[in-house]
Amino acid sequence: MDAQVKPHERLADALAAPLGEVDALIRDRMASENAPRIPEVTQHLVGAGGKRIRPMLTLASARLLGYPGPYDVHLAATVEFIHTATLLHDDVVDESSKRRGRPTANLLWDNKSSVLVGDYLFARSFQLMVETGSLRVLDILANAAATIAEGEVLQLTAMSDLSTGEETYLRIVRGKTAALFSAATEVGGVIAGGTEDQVRALHTYGDALGIAFQMADDVIDWLDETGKGVGDDFRERKMTLPLIRAIANAQGEDWTFWARTIGKGRQEDGDLERAQALLTQTGALESTRATALGWSDKAKDALQQLPDHPLRGMLSDLADFVVERLR
Amino acid sequence: MDAQVKPHERLADALAAPLGEVDALIRDRMASENAPRIPEVTQHLVGAGGKRIRPMLTLASARLLGYPGPYDVHLAATVEFIHTATLLHDDVVDESSKRRGRPTANLLWDNKSSVLVGDYLFARSFQLMVETGSLRVLDILANAAATIAEGEVLQLTAMSDLSTGEETYLRIVRGKTAALFSAATEVGGVIAGGTEDQVRALHTYGDALGIAFQMADDVIDWLDETGKGVGDDFRERKMTLPLIRAIANAQGEDWTFWARTIGKGRQEDGDLERAQALLTQTGALESTRATALGWSDKAKDALQQLPDHPLRGMLSDLADFVVERLR
Repeated sequence: MDAQVKPHERLADALAAPLGEVDALIRDRMASENAPRIPEVTQHLVGAGGKRIRPMLTLASARLLGYPGPYDVHLAATVEFIHTATLLHDDVVDESSKRRGRPTANLLWDNKSSVLVGDYLFARSFQLMVETGSLRVLDILANAAATIAEGEVLQLTAMSDLSTGEETYLRIVRGKTAALFSAATEVGGVIAGGTEDQVRALHTYGDALGIAFQMADDVIDWLDETGKGVGDDFRERKMTLPLIRAIANAQGEDWTFWARTIGKGRQEDGDLERAQALLTQTGALESTRATALGWSDKAKDALQQLPDHPLRGMLSDLADFVVERLR
Repeated sequence: MDAQVKPHERLADALAAPLGEVDALIRDRMASENAPRIPEVTQHLVGAGGKRIRPMLTLASARLLGYPGPYDVHLAATVEFIHTATLLHDDVVDESSKRRGRPTANLLWDNKSSVLVGDYLFARSFQLMVETGSLRVLDILANAAATIAEGEVLQLTAMSDLSTGEETYLRIVRGKTAALFSAATEVGGVIAGGTEDQVRALHTYGDALGIAFQMADDVIDWLDETGKGVGDDFRERKMTLPLIRAIANAQGEDWTFWARTIGKGRQEDGDLERAQALLTQTGALESTRATALGWSDKAKDALQQLPDHPLRGMLSDLADFVVERLR
């Protein structure tokens, strides 16, 4: 196996046929004869690519249990629709202007279109899952949708709140990332008729993978060596795990510094550098890095419950890959 | 029967017991231990009252077919959640500042909370309907959700577009009002185990009632005698039926007037009065009034397919009531 080929690329290769069906289904269902604005907005997003991790998680989960299709294709399209809908709404909430290197829909059109087209995609995803005829699948995805929305609201209210604890952070991370990952893997197992142990293992894998992925992102945001904008979370006063751990034992001048920059949002030149230094000195970055690696291990462990299969190996490599930037 | 007591008040009286259960279920399910912002925002809306027409439509439809409960209560709460979610998102889209005489959630908190709490209520409604265990009910509500979102997008893109036709208007009206009305009545019939004819009749009733209700609203917006703000649709350049019909045959100076005020949005003092005069002279208001009354009759006719029952009489009176302001 060529080490240069990334795990999600190998997954895309192994799942090329059903992924093609997912794409066709997405194109078909996002169309709206009546409201041409809808495909305009969604085309913009779907055309922008993205790694399609979530649909691949569903397809891989179902197929490593020997499921031949076709309903994993519906479910893969469902999770991608839910993901796209949340991106549209996030862009309104974050007031962001770029997504995947292109202007966001809310800038190209307006916030109104982002809200309403997001609602349309939610409704379409809901129609797709009803077609599978599985009430259990519907239950899992309905719960995921509630967890996602709850996590997003929680993130909004925790912003700049210095008393935010690790438990709240974990709930936010489950909402913004892990809930859809774990629903994607779990419904794959359910539609394939997996045993309860297998379905539970797939849920655990998706949950741990999502948490590891998001935690890695939250560490990277503080590191200088990446090409991406450093310190976005500091500027937006997002209470991510590195910050929570740095603030946990802060006293004296350090506490005053956090109360001013995060609590009150009064930030000056040099503050980001001081914040970065505090996160390193307190060991907050290092310990978050270790926690993220722990979640990646947990994801890989869960896979042991599942049949030996090339797709299982790729899912395991994916769990390594999401934290690779931390090594 | 006291003529002073309005039909929706008589319905609320006849359905007092199950409506109480709906309220309790709504209070229970809109709670979120993890994100206290959620009940703050929803309490604000639910506390504001409203006539609860939609949940009553579901309860009345099920119970006039002899259904004793309990799942019509779940479905009634479901449709009220969907309705509340669309109100929250509408307030963002319309940039409105008042709803039911109180400041809207997007002003009291922010657009972000309105978007995310709306998403949360959608997800909660989805969980509630899964609990009924009826895939047919899920199918009806999923289709309604898609029609609602599509109609809202269509309304956004049709705004100020002088070429908007009556067919597009009807699609918009179905999206913003009738789709949830007809889903509310139809799922009541399905959960009660009604015959196909009965279920179809309930759907037709809800659809026609919703259209009559919205058309009446669109006529009233042009009339001086109401207490409400007159001419909102003119100022927002909304292509409602009276305007579509007035513009349809406009020529010369009149056409230039519409192209300026609606097409380009350049409105001056006296324009509203001239627009009102044109809608009267062309017969556009009068013919829309007649069309609305026709939909009200259609709603009442559909009820003939259903068993004789006090609730049926109240639903019939409700169809008269929604167009009463036009008589």
